[in-house]
Parts: sequence; C-alpha cells; structure tokens
Amino acid sequence: MPNVIFRHEDGTSVNVTVAAGEILLDVARKANVAIDAPCSGNGLCGKCRVKYLSGELESEKTRHISDEEYADGWRLACLSKVTGDVEILVPDIASAYKSRMKVADLSSREEVAIFDKAREEVAASGIAFQNIFSVMELSMDRPTLQDTMPDNERLIRAIQEHIEDKKVKLTYQVLRKLPDVLREQKFHVSVVLKDLGEQVMVYDILPAGEQKLCAAAIDIGTTTVSGVLLDMRDGKILAKASSGNGQIRYGADVINRIIESRKEGGQEKLQKAIIKETINPMLDNMCRAAEIPADHIYHMCVASNTTMNHLFVGVNADPLRMEPYIPAFFETDNISAGDLRLHAHADADVILAPNIGSYVGGDITAGVLVSMIWNKPEYNLFIDLGTNGEIVFGNSDFMMSCACSAGPAFEGGDISCGMRATDGAIEACSIDAKTMEPTFHIIGDKGQKPVGLCGSGIIDVIAELFRCDIISPKGKFIREGKRVRRDEYGIGSYVLAFKEEAAGHKDVVINEVDIDNFIRAKGAIFSAICTLLRSLDFDVSMIENVYVAGGIGSGINMKNAVTIGMFPDVELDKFHYIGNSSLTGAYCITMSEDARKKVHEIAHNMTYLELSTDPGYMDEFVAACFIPHTDTSLFPSVKQEEI
Amino acid sequence: MPNVIFRHEDGTSVNVTVAAGEILLDVARKANVAIDAPCSGNGLCGKCRVKYLSGELESEKTRHISDEEYADGWRLACLSKVTGDVEILVPDIASAYKSRMKVADLSSREEVAIFDKAREEVAASGIAFQNIFSVMELSMDRPTLQDTMPDNERLIRAIQEHIEDKKVKLTYQVLRKLPDVLREQKFHVSVVLKDLGEQVMVYDILPAGEQKLCAAAIDIGTTTVSGVLLDMRDGKILAKASSGNGQIRYGADVINRIIESRKEGGQEKLQKAIIKETINPMLDNMCRAAEIPADHIYHMCVASNTTMNHLFVGVNADPLRMEPYIPAFFETDNISAGDLRLHAHADADVILAPNIGSYVGGDITAGVLVSMIWNKPEYNLFIDLGTNGEIVFGNSDFMMSCACSAGPAFEGGDISCGMRATDGAIEACSIDAKTMEPTFHIIGDKGQKPVGLCGSGIIDVIAELFRCDIISPKGKFIREGKRVRRDEYGIGSYVLAFKEEAAGHKDVVINEVDIDNFIRAKGAIFSAICTLLRSLDFDVSMIENVYVAGGIGSGINMKNAVTIGMFPDVELDKFHYIGNSSLTGAYCITMSEDARKKVHEIAHNMTYLELSTDPGYMDEFVAACFIPHTDTSLFPSVKQEEI
Repeated sequence: MPNVIFRHEDGTSVNVTVAAGEILLDVARKANVAIDAPCSGNGLCGKCRVKYLSGELESEKTRHISDEEYADGWRLACLSKVTGDVEILVPDIASAYKSRMKVADLSSREEVAIFDKAREEVAASGIAFQNIFSVMELSMDRPTLQDTMPDNERLIRAIQEHIEDKKVKLTYQVLRKLPDVLREQKFHVSVVLKDLGEQVMVYDILPAGEQKLCAAAIDIGTTTVSGVLLDMRDGKILAKASSGNGQIRYGADVINRIIESRKEGGQEKLQKAIIKETINPMLDNMCRAAEIPADHIYHMCVASNTTMNHLFVGVNADPLRMEPYIPAFFETDNISAGDLRLHAHADADVILAPNIGSYVGGDITAGVLVSMIWNKPEYNLFIDLGTNGEIVFGNSDFMMSCACSAGPAFEGGDISCGMRATDGAIEACSIDAKTMEPTFHIIGDKGQKPVGLCGSGIIDVIAELFRCDIISPKGKFIREGKRVRRDEYGIGSYVLAFKEEAAGHKDVVINEVDIDNFIRAKGAIFSAICTLLRSLDFDVSMIENVYVAGGIGSGINMKNAVTIGMFPDVELDKFHYIGNSSLTGAYCITMSEDARKKVHEIAHNMTYLELSTDPGYMDEFVAACFIPHTDTSLFPSVKQEEI
Repeated sequence: MPNVIFRHEDGTSVNVTVAAGEILLDVARKANVAIDAPCSGNGLCGKCRVKYLSGELESEKTRHISDEEYADGWRLACLSKVTGDVEILVPDIASAYKSRMKVADLSSREEVAIFDKAREEVAASGIAFQNIFSVMELSMDRPTLQDTMPDNERLIRAIQEHIEDKKVKLTYQVLRKLPDVLREQKFHVSVVLKDLGEQVMVYDILPAGEQKLCAAAIDIGTTTVSGVLLDMRDGKILAKASSGNGQIRYGADVINRIIESRKEGGQEKLQKAIIKETINPMLDNMCRAAEIPADHIYHMCVASNTTMNHLFVGVNADPLRMEPYIPAFFETDNISAGDLRLHAHADADVILAPNIGSYVGGDITAGVLVSMIWNKPEYNLFIDLGTNGEIVFGNSDFMMSCACSAGPAFEGGDISCGMRATDGAIEACSIDAKTMEPTFHIIGDKGQKPVGLCGSGIIDVIAELFRCDIISPKGKFIREGKRVRRDEYGIGSYVLAFKEEAAGHKDVVINEVDIDNFIRAKGAIFSAICTLLRSLDFDVSMIENVYVAGGIGSGINMKNAVTIGMFPDVELDKFHYIGNSSLTGAYCITMSEDARKKVHEIAHNMTYLELSTDPGYMDEFVAACFIPHTDTSLFPSVKQEEI
C-alpha cells in the first residue's frame, strides 16, 4: 500500500499508509493534516494547493493551476489521486486558516474604538456592567480543641459574616483543596464567589491577595473565531486572540460541516476541531499573554450561529439542515467548561448567546444587543456579514430576522486571491478609469507587499472595475489592457499586482469566477434585505440606520458596497460599521448580568423568517445577481454617477 | 538491578525491577500487587505471608512462620529483603481482602431478615420511603414547518404538561443526546426526572418503556466495603456486593492510611484503591447481576467513617489525625459520580451520610438512623463494631457519641487465623470443659473445612477458653493438653483444627498474641462505653436496649461477649444485633428523601466526646484489658457462673 509523506514548511512531517487510488485531500483529512478546502473538495475554490515533491500522484489539470505552476509541482489536493509512494509539501498558505493565529479582531486602533463605542452605548441604555462574580478576602480563627468546626463550615461562616441570609455552597473542586489551602495560607485566603440569588457558590479558594476574576468571551464564526480575556471586576480586556476556525478543512459552510459531522466519528471530529484545535490554543495564548493560569477563567460566553453552537457543544446538528429545520436548542443550561474540556476552570459556566432559529443564532442576538436597535423607536437595519449573512430589521417594538448563505466570499474565501483581513491583504482599492492602474492600501507595516484581497478590498475592486467600465453589470471583462487578460479557458481576469510586486508565489488577480462568486454573495444579502422588508410591507426609504457588522473589517467602503448593489441605496451617513458585534455582545453578556438577561429578552422578541421556504426569495436573488441590480431604479445614486 | 516476579495462584504474574535491598512488601505495593499488611509492614500481624519459589531473598525468622513452613518457602513479605533476582508466589489468602469479592453482607437469610426488620422499623416511624426521582413516559408531536420549536423546549413543554409550575432543566448529557433519541424513538421517550422543589432536572432520556430507576448504597468500612443496588421506585434490592477495602495494603487502620496518604501521590493512590479497585468493580458486578448499564445508576449514598469519606472524595485527611483533629467537612454538597469517576451516571449525586466528628462519621449517623434510638424516650446504647468502635448513647432528647480504635480484630484482622465472616470461617464455638475438645459451626456448605476464625468465632473461643479455665483473666494459657501447645518463644496456643482437618496450609489455632490483641480490642469498646456513660453520670442499669451493629455477623453470641467483658453485663434480652446498620442506613437515605433529611437532623442533634483528650479514658482502658475486667463487680453474671 502506498506511503504518503506530508512535509510542512516548518520541517515537520506526517507519514501515512493509504489504499491506492485515494484522493490526497481525504488522506490529509484522515491524517489530520490541515489543508484548506472551503469548497469541501469539489475542485471549485482552488484553495487546497499543495506541492508535489516526488513519487506517484495522478492530478487533474485545473484552471486554478497555471502550466508554469503545474511544472513547478503545484497541484490541488482534491483533484489528486495517490497511485504510489509520494512526498507532498503542504505550504503554510494551504493551512492558513488553521495556522495563522494572530490578533485580527480588536487589533487595530479603529476596531478598538468601535468596540469601546459599542460598549458605551450598551451601558448608556441602562444595562449595568455588573456580574454575579466577586472576590472576597477572608481571615478565619484557626481551629482549636475548643473550636473544632470542620473546614467547610468555618469557611462558610466566614463568608456569611459578609453576606447574610444566603446559603453558601462549595463546589467539589473547592472542597478538594480546602484543607490544604487553609493550612498553607494560615486561614487567610481569597475566595471567588458566584451569587445565584438565594445561594452563593464558592468557585475557588486561593492565597489571599490580588486576584483577577477572569472570563472569556468568544465569537465562533464559521470561518473565523475571535476571543477576548477580560477581568470581570472592571471589564478590562487582558488579552485578545483570533484564529481561523479549525473546522474549515471539513467544509467552508455550515451545510458541509453538518454533512461531515454525520459521518462516523464526525461529531467528535468537528467538536475537537473547534475546541481542541481552535479555542483551547486561543485560551492558552490569551492566558499566557495575561500571565494567568487557565483555571482562573471562571465564566465564559460564546456567541455563534446555530450550527456552530450545536457542533461546539457536540449536539447532532443534522436536523438543522433538513426540513423542518429544527435546532436541538435555542437556549442552554448547565454546560460547564469541564463538560467541553475547554481550557478554563472546570466549573466555569459556558453561556451561549441564545439562538432564535436554525439559521439565526447567538451571534445575531449578541450582535443585535450591541446594535441597540432593540432600544430605539426608529426603524433600523442590522446586517451581519459572515459566511452566513443575517439581517435583522425593526425597532424597540418588534424585530424580524432572516439568514442567507453568502458563502465565505466576504472573508476572502471562494476567491482565488482571497484572504482574511490580516497582513498583506489589500483592504481598499481605487482604479484610474483611464490607465486602469490600481492604487491600493495594504494591511501591515510600511513596505508590506500584497498577498491577496480581503472582503473590503474585493468590494472596492469590483466597484472600481464596474465604475471604470472594465467589467459589465454581469461581471464580465469588457475592456482590454495590460492588466486584463484571459486564460486558456477564456476566463478574464484583472491583475492587481504582478508576481514580482507581490509577496507570494504568484500574481494577485481577480477573475470572472471570483467576481461571479462575490456577486452571488452580495446578491444573497441584498435579496434577503428585500424579502424581509417586503414581508413587512416596508421599503428602504423607511430605514433610519444600517448597522453593518462582521469580520469584513472597518475598511469597508459603504459607497462601493452600494455601488455593487450589496446594500440598499440609502444616504451614506446612515451606514455604521459596528465591528464584530457578535464578539462585543459576547463580551457584554460575560461582563453584565443585565446584558445576559437582555439578550434573552431580545431573542424572545425577535421573529424569524425562513427564506428557504419563502416563495419570493429566489426571484429576488436572481434579480440581485447583477451590478448593481437588474432593476437599476433601486439604485438611483449609482445610476446618476454612471451618467 | 534485581528482578522480582510475583506469581499469583491463578497463573498471572507481575514482573518488576527494583533496587537491591528493597523490602519485598514495598516492592509489591509499588507494583500494585495486593498483599494484606494490616499492621502496615511492622512484622506484627503475620498476614503478609508469601512463598519464596527461587532466587535471592533475605528473610528474618518470625514467630508467624514455623520451621516447617520456613523450609516450605513461607516468608513474611515485610521482613524480606530483595538481594537479587527472585520469584515469589502470592497466595490468594494473602490478597484475600482485595480479591475475595463475594456477597458477604445480606448474603444469609438471617441478615436479610435483620435488614428487612430495620427497614420496616424506620418506615414505621413515619419516614416515607419516597424519593425525588421519577420516570415519565412522554409522547410529543413531531416538529413541522409550522411547529419549529427546538427539541429541548418541546421536551420541557411535554414534561410541564404533567408537572406544572416548575422550571424544567436538562443536564448537558441529556441535551447532548436529545436530538438523536427523539428522532430514533419517533418522539416517544422515557425521561428520568429529579424533583428539586422549584425546579425539575431531566437526568436522562431513553427509549420509552419499562425503565429501572437504579441507585447504589455503599458502606465503606476501613476493612470491608458493602453495597446494594436498588430500584428507587419500589426499594427492591437488585444486587448486592461486598469486598475487602482495597486500601488495606496501605495499613489496617485509619491512622496508617492517613499517613500513607500524605506520601507523594498518596492521596490519589488511596482514592484509587477505594474507588477504582474496590467500589467500581463492586458496581460493575452488581450492574452485571442486575443486567443494567452502569449509567442507569442515578443516585448514590455512601456511609463511612470520617477518614474513609475524606479519602473517598480525595480530600486531605491529615488534619483528622493531629490535634485539634479537624475534618474538612461534616456534610458535603455537589459531589457527582463523574467527579469521582465512579461507574455510575456521571451526573448522579453522591450523598455522604454526615459526619459528626473526626472519628464519628457517616457510618454512625446512618447506623443510628436505623437503630431508632433517636425516636425512643428510653435510654439506649448503640455499638458499631468495626476497625473503629463507635458508641452512641441517648434517646429522643439527646445523643452522645464517641469512638475508639479497636483495630481489625472484630473482622478477623490482627489474629493469626482471623478472617472475615465468609466460607470456611468458624463463626461459633463451644469447648468441652473436661476434654478441652472444641465443637464449632463453620460458614459454608456442609462438609466445609475450617479456614480460620471470624469475629464472632473468636469471641466464642476466648469466652470458652476462659470458662473452661484454659486461659487466665490475662489471657495466658494455664491448662495443658493435646490442643494446648507452646512455641519456641514460649507463646501458648490452642489448636482448633489440626492441619489435616483444616482447609488451608496449616493448623487453625488461636495463640496468646491473638488473645491479647482481642482483649485490647474488646477493652477499647468496653472502656469507651464506661467513659461515655460516666461523662453523662449514667450507669449500665439505665440502659434499656443495646443495639449491636457491624460486620461481626449475626452469629455473635451476646452471652459470650459479656463473658469476656466486651459488652456491659445487662440482661441478655436487651441485646439486639442489627446487622450492618451503616449499609441499611445508606439504603434508607438513598431510597427516602425523609431519611436523608432525618440523618442530617440526627447528626445535628448528636454531640461528640473526644476520648483521646478525656482524662479518664486511658485508666478505663487499662482496667478493661482483663477477662472480663479488673473490677469483676461490673460483671456479676460472669462471676456467678464461675462460682
């Protein structure tokens, strides 16, 4: 049987014996070698590029690999069959989503400012940033032959001197270390308390003195996971982290993940990918940065879409994808970090922001909390741009929500040179209408060469290509020039940076397939907005504000987003980018008991429109798959400019 | 470095490399080879007999091994030093406490009758045998596009149709399997519920239909562990088990266990010995016998002395043995089977019968519950004969308790031919005053040859030897005869069965060292009773009933126990053997929420007399170390007979 060696750029390698004829991507999955495959191995996205080094491998030719690259050894893992012993290089770029662990969210000053502003607005609404955790320092009399009270009663009485009329209970973990800590610390200790109303729970016992009261807020996106470590006493952020979702190798969207989870051992595999491979390393990194042990994290809140939170807690998500689309839960109780083997205090509660439908989950309820639309009389629109796009419309009286599948395009997936908004990403772009030469802004230090395009960059490029008449409303190239070219299949593309100007192995380009993918993503969003408003007999003129959230980044150019027909054509000053509102919401829920209650109230007050069973949605979608739209009257500002 | 091979009689063997000069018993402990060593390896008890097969071993001569036996290869492991490669046979008898897993408690008809009577008396006092667990069968409407309620809400609503006005919550484990079970069972299921007052917890979800509601009640004795598996719906006992306490190899009494637990890794080792090596195999056996999976055990109650329950839950027990003798807890909360890795449903609560002092623990509060002395106006005495002896005196107005260290003699420990009350044990004996020939009753089938003496047998033998003037009040042999002999050290002994009549490798004898050990054990009990009564200004005439509990067995001859001065000299019809009241109490607490509350009430109403700091106790003890006592006026009935 053939032997496959996967070599990583860091020098490590994985060796595995397989059956002849197996697909290389499948082999990699079984061997736990992380290779991005957003399209789930269908040869569509071109992301699973690996380099053939030696041995026997049968690979299909594809438009994603040029002849030159093919000669260089580049192959798509999903289109390669192992026919004998073979040696493969897995470039870092291929496992980018997994291996690039860096602070993306809240990493820039702009994003921190957006976060702070959102937090202030929530607080200004009367939500107290107070939680049920506290630290208490205690000095007890040492036991004597005349005072032989057991350790736990001694501790309970000492606590009750400060909080009367409440039952005090100890967790098993506290009981377990109680006699040791009391005697080592000479009966002078700090306790971590959780006030449950009639009852106070002792969560931890530690040496007396300064004690951080840590908690973690996590946003699990289908593509990207972000988190903050905070001190619950003052809300201070102690550390931040973000990472690609380790499940990405099992499919780019929630449907592919669910399908993968139904295979044998799949549920455990998907749960492991998000917890062991993604969140735990993030928690570890944040604890290291904040110089605290993991078991000082006493509380956690996770905001995520319905599929992500089902897979996170290890619950069968299959009923979510099949009619009648039933989640196992909207709200949960009694889930602890220990249950999920999270790197936190085993007794830490894991609160999930509540779901309200199969495709509108806790990321949206948490985001709506932050958007403040629940607290305003005027009608506002909330849009979360992720792998799924979710739309909420309403005011303090009612809120209605829906979800559409946008795919990973907004986060750079499904786009040949797409990437997340990290170093090397083109985040903004303009094109000279005459020379067709681009000018762009790249994330990173001065001199950073372009690696690819992040979501906001793609919007700009498509809007500019359209504005300069380089592409048609259908997204096809209609002008020729040095930067426009066609491959052997006739597919047109625009070169943003030639190989020699770029940081990576190849030219940074955008092609018709990419544009088509992106048009479908923006079409899904726009048609969802239209369907939602139509179902309520509203139109865009009634929208007072549009709150845009998601990992697309603060760089998003709202004018360009309107130009391509992604957002409704309202006054530009009505648009507000509110950052990763799911993470901000999770932060608020972690920090504030009021916010935790409020998000549940919001969830109860929000109705859900199922688009997949809405008779008009498909027509809206088809009509929206143009730049800006088949019905240009919907985009008067775009038309004007064109004239 | 020398290599030691331990061979077991069942053909298995353990191979270990050690440093030259190591003591064989220590080597066995490190290699997890179970060898009884009640005296903790001090060469005193003679229990750690092993057979030298070949190789190099340096062994001290001892009175426990005859010349003939020595020539045969018999050695004490604690007195043997490994000097080179060696091969050792570990006879089953040496690991008896660990390996003999059989139903000892509740195994005989007499003991079941005693158990049933006790249960009836508890019920007759008005304690309802009802608990907070129930099974409910539910049929739900299947979800449709018009009825998209999530699975957990659907389940909760279905339950709330039967129990209104209560919050219903699901454990994480139920949530985890919820969508699968609902769909596999077509929304027709059984749920296991726990009613917590304002809130009902869903503990399990299973296919609809007959569902046992199992619980386990466990008595952890220092020497012996007993348990029953029961159905909480009707109280029916589904299976029984008993076993030696796996901790026995770390010392016979609680003090030696605590000392061992303070060595590096000791606490984990002791906890593992009781849970992994003792209780889990018992639970497994009972589940197998009852044909239920372990995770159908939803509730557990453990009754045990204070040291045993500290070691069981893995809490430092060291402060128990040092002034001022402080336990970590009397009562506990929030301990689940999962915390302790017990083979039961992970969420099963583990209730500990409450302790009331460092040396009066849950076995006594559970036992007192069963004795009913808390419910009667007259003064009664409760005696629990175990490795520790505990005494409780009082009535429905007050109860006072104390504890003394009797050692393992009542369970056959510290006695050269001692054994537990299982097959082959001489449990009753009489001796012909003239011929000095014994007649005895042996536990087991007809034709069973004697193996050794259990507690009740030892009482009989000593009483009869004294009555026949074969031994003096000091326990020394004062008559000669065929069955009386002296060894090379001058130590006298009485042969109950010669080798050829016995089942084992050697004569069944009782010698002066055994008698001395037993006199000290009975002296400890009697002096504790005297000290307790004296502290209250009571005397034995005020005792209405004496309830005797413990593993000594229903075979105990109360008259003989008075003859040797173990129990106070009151009318024989005042004595009642109530069996293993700790186990019966644990059963009641498991079955009945009333009983659980009552045992806590009993614990709160019971005071504790610390004997080790009582100025008169030591004098009482010394005076009681005679047969029957130095003050024979305390035993008028014994005197009468002697005349």
